[in-house]
Amino acid sequence: MRISDLSRRSGVPVPTIKFYLREQLLMPGTPTARNQAVYDERHLQRVRLIRTLAGIGELELSSVRELLATVDDGRVSLAEVAATVNRALSPREGKATAPPPSGEHADEAGRYVEGLSWDHTRGSPGPQLLAEVLTALRELGCEAELTIFDALAAMAEQLAVAELDLLAGHSPAIDRGSAVAHTVLVNVAFTVLHRMAHLHHAMRRLAATGDLPAGLDN
Amino acid sequence: MRISDLSRRSGVPVPTIKFYLREQLLMPGTPTARNQAVYDERHLQRVRLIRTLAGIGELELSSVRELLATVDDGRVSLAEVAATVNRALSPREGKATAPPPSGEHADEAGRYVEGLSWDHTRGSPGPQLLAEVLTALRELGCEAELTIFDALAAMAEQLAVAELDLLAGHSPAIDRGSAVAHTVLVNVAFTVLHRMAHLHHAMRRLAATGDLPAGLDN
Repeated sequence: MRISDLSRRSGVPVPTIKFYLREQLLMPGTPTARNQAVYDERHLQRVRLIRTLAGIGELELSSVRELLATVDDGRVSLAEVAATVNRALSPREGKATAPPPSGEHADEAGRYVEGLSWDHTRGSPGPQLLAEVLTALRELGCEAELTIFDALAAMAEQLAVAELDLLAGHSPAIDRGSAVAHTVLVNVAFTVLHRMAHLHHAMRRLAATGDLPAGLDN
Repeated sequence: MRISDLSRRSGVPVPTIKFYLREQLLMPGTPTARNQAVYDERHLQRVRLIRTLAGIGELELSSVRELLATVDDGRVSLAEVAATVNRALSPREGKATAPPPSGEHADEAGRYVEGLSWDHTRGSPGPQLLAEVLTALRELGCEAELTIFDALAAMAEQLAVAELDLLAGHSPAIDRGSAVAHTVLVNVAFTVLHRMAHLHHAMRRLAATGDLPAGLDN
């Protein structure tokens, strides 16, 4: 198919596809004439994967590039693919504007994460980010202990198991790229459901205290 | 205090504070001389709030601006503040690169969300985003029905209730700005815990199938 057909079938505009080609995220088509090439189903699948990651998945270009590289290289283990997806979906580490958490908070967060007994947390940005959250909560005047997150940690684990079960339900049939897209898409679905549920329950509580103005209740 | 003290106490660099001032996110200090001003505790609190939202919270400047406006305007109801926070934390609606979901998928997602019986979903980007997820999953060859998300929806609701309970535990003591920061920070904490739990369980399953190379198990 020509680039215009690739665009029509994927729903991705031609200039965006040309951008993917220039950035070497999409492999070149088979040249047919000067400045012309044809594309096949593999190209279509790849364009859809890039669009899922960079579009609804909201991943940065550097993460998309890194993910595609692990997907393409058959010598990279599935474990490394899983680690790369998780890094891509993690909040960014150590923003320049964030003050480094105090050593005390970093130690507290480190001990808390150790207590969760999850493997592969060493070297992860998780403890550092939790220390930043703790520092920020205390600056707000919330006398927070990390144990307030125990219920959240239990739910995070339940959610992860449910997501992996969904993926395992498909896994004999889908390839590495699709497994990555699946992980990102299910994560989006949860975030969307979470925000709707949060608004629903926040409004309910405000209605109970009388802060909900008439007309806002759907 | 001078701007240098404000920087030291907040951990936010002086050029960043000047950027907040120029963008009118931070109210001006009291002028003392040409090009000099002093700041007080309200400024410190504000700088910390902006840093939380734009830093670890990763919100875009437009969302930060909108949130601060709702926080500052006492005539804005808490219900509107809650709605604004939820919008800021939602995945972005209709990316230019996303093909519009087919009418059929949009209807399916609309019916699914109606079935959840959550208020305030009308006009929310949620159903549209779920339709996009559904379209993308089916393009991957996953014969997905939205009912696969039933377990996720139940967990999303549980999580929202747990988060609001954490906030309610503080609410007589903290102001609107702090309530917004609290919501954002607890959301970051959950995401961090979720990614660590996901990696842990993904690695476990891969180890069981023999794909985990030696040396990767922490």
